[in-house]
Amino acid sequence: MGGDFAPANEVEGAVEAMRSLDSSHFELVFVGREKDIKTELAKHDTSDLNYSIVHAPDVVSMKDDPAMAFKKKRQSSLFQGIDLHANSYVDAFVSAGNTGAVMSVATLALGRIKGVSRPTIGSFLPTTGEGFTLLLDVGANVESRSKFLYEFAIMGSIYSRQIRNIENPRIALLNIGEEASKGAENVVRAYELLESSSFNFIGNIEGRDILTNKADVVVCDGFTGNIVLKFAESFLTLFKAKLRAFADKAAINKLIVAAMRPVLKRVLKGLDYQDYGGVPLLGVNGVVIIGHGSNSARAMKNSLLLAVDMVQKQVNKRIENAVNPPSLTEYSYEN
Amino acid sequence: MGGDFAPANEVEGAVEAMRSLDSSHFELVFVGREKDIKTELAKHDTSDLNYSIVHAPDVVSMKDDPAMAFKKKRQSSLFQGIDLHANSYVDAFVSAGNTGAVMSVATLALGRIKGVSRPTIGSFLPTTGEGFTLLLDVGANVESRSKFLYEFAIMGSIYSRQIRNIENPRIALLNIGEEASKGAENVVRAYELLESSSFNFIGNIEGRDILTNKADVVVCDGFTGNIVLKFAESFLTLFKAKLRAFADKAAINKLIVAAMRPVLKRVLKGLDYQDYGGVPLLGVNGVVIIGHGSNSARAMKNSLLLAVDMVQKQVNKRIENAVNPPSLTEYSYEN
Repeated sequence: MGGDFAPANEVEGAVEAMRSLDSSHFELVFVGREKDIKTELAKHDTSDLNYSIVHAPDVVSMKDDPAMAFKKKRQSSLFQGIDLHANSYVDAFVSAGNTGAVMSVATLALGRIKGVSRPTIGSFLPTTGEGFTLLLDVGANVESRSKFLYEFAIMGSIYSRQIRNIENPRIALLNIGEEASKGAENVVRAYELLESSSFNFIGNIEGRDILTNKADVVVCDGFTGNIVLKFAESFLTLFKAKLRAFADKAAINKLIVAAMRPVLKRVLKGLDYQDYGGVPLLGVNGVVIIGHGSNSARAMKNSLLLAVDMVQKQVNKRIENAVNPPSLTEYSYEN
Repeated sequence: MGGDFAPANEVEGAVEAMRSLDSSHFELVFVGREKDIKTELAKHDTSDLNYSIVHAPDVVSMKDDPAMAFKKKRQSSLFQGIDLHANSYVDAFVSAGNTGAVMSVATLALGRIKGVSRPTIGSFLPTTGEGFTLLLDVGANVESRSKFLYEFAIMGSIYSRQIRNIENPRIALLNIGEEASKGAENVVRAYELLESSSFNFIGNIEGRDILTNKADVVVCDGFTGNIVLKFAESFLTLFKAKLRAFADKAAINKLIVAAMRPVLKRVLKGLDYQDYGGVPLLGVNGVVIIGHGSNSARAMKNSLLLAVDMVQKQVNKRIENAVNPPSLTEYSYEN
């Protein structure tokens, strides 16, 4: 209910997602204001649709303090939905609501995967190549011990391999230089941890190479990641402002810009991954997908399909195995 | 000698700078390979030009390790020029060479302004408004104590006021939220220091507001600043790649992009401050201006005029006064 177009896009996307699945194997649970959900459902053909509704009268808004949601918004769709998941009534939870609140409530209600220090949320950034790069953490884990960075890398790698079908995902650390000795101590130490791991660590990359398709997974602390992500989102704003300033200079400029607009739209579209779907909250003991507040029905559909994929491919189990490798002693003993 | 077009653009820019000044009050000292400098000088009318040449046979290249320049490149134009400044033969030093090497040699040879913990280098980023925002530190001071951030803010403010003629520069801290309590401890503490100062501190801004003209001076640690700056520089690369991909889709697209190119060039030009001039290394006990390696003669001219301005307006003296305010006891005593 917390998304900008809720529950219209949520319901439409969910109905489409269910249609594309073998409905005898899936059940959809809508959580939110029953009346609003039913109004939206009436707009679609829901015969054969295996669904139920759990009424939740309250909503966590985009402006609500994320830290308060767990304590003070227990009747919200956000809390109720995650609580259903925490109590195993559902296998995954998808929301286009307040990202911080989803992170916070999910972490508290679901707990962490054994061995994971901090859940992380990533973001997909466009590249000069075909695909997107997964930048994480952008979930603002302010504390950034080397161990956390290492775990972000592992989780990003497993996700990229299982879900994005990248065979041997290239992991890079975001740093101020390529040499192993560069950067603050936590980054230097994370370099060592990654280098001695079995993952495909390609070393440090600088800010200029986030978008150049050098790595599939770019790892940094949540402070840097959050600033880079929000900074990236503002570039289009700057470009549009400069285009407008140019248009305002002369009548002919206005015509030129008007003629260019549809082309630019086509060129720039596809830069925003959130058009396609949501991103997973990795490291919690459950499957949680967070979409953009203003996401489309298509993005919501894709987020739900992503949730199904995450469950079926047992991403969390693989993360748990990777962060808790069996010790050599136990191994020898059992064999 | 370390710039990409050295010494051609350097000499041309310097000759133009001198012509725009009252030459009886200024002397220009070229430091570098005498023969190369003379070859370039011969291309210009240098009658009435008050200049001399100090021969330096060696060059610090862009690929040289900055930390090595001080010890191992003493015969370079970079070292010799800064050494002339350190020994008071010249009042300012301008270079389009290796930024890290200039920072490192200048800090060691000139020392710091009394009370300044770390010299800083900023960068100007375009905004949706008319002007540019000064982001600092981008010089990669990996350690980022609250005191350092506070001093970066003071130096940026004084520079913006004296040199950029902004009466009461708006200072912001780059953070992951606007609340005073957000971010790591060093940032929270820097917030307190700035808030209780006499400077125009407007609070925290997020990554999305660096380019929206909310602040004249944006302060962050060198790790974050370096990554943001280099990331910003790569956006044009991404845009061009997407434009090329669009052009490659169809013959008609190629024509459209070709027609758009001159307009886009005009729209995007002016985004790069380095086209106009260099940036100062603030906090060293001297005036040091660093230009882009590939800077034009015009940028070099402007860098030299900026150096003159920095000297005449006594920016360093003002920084020293600001970071070492007379204590109340002394004040009471003297009055």
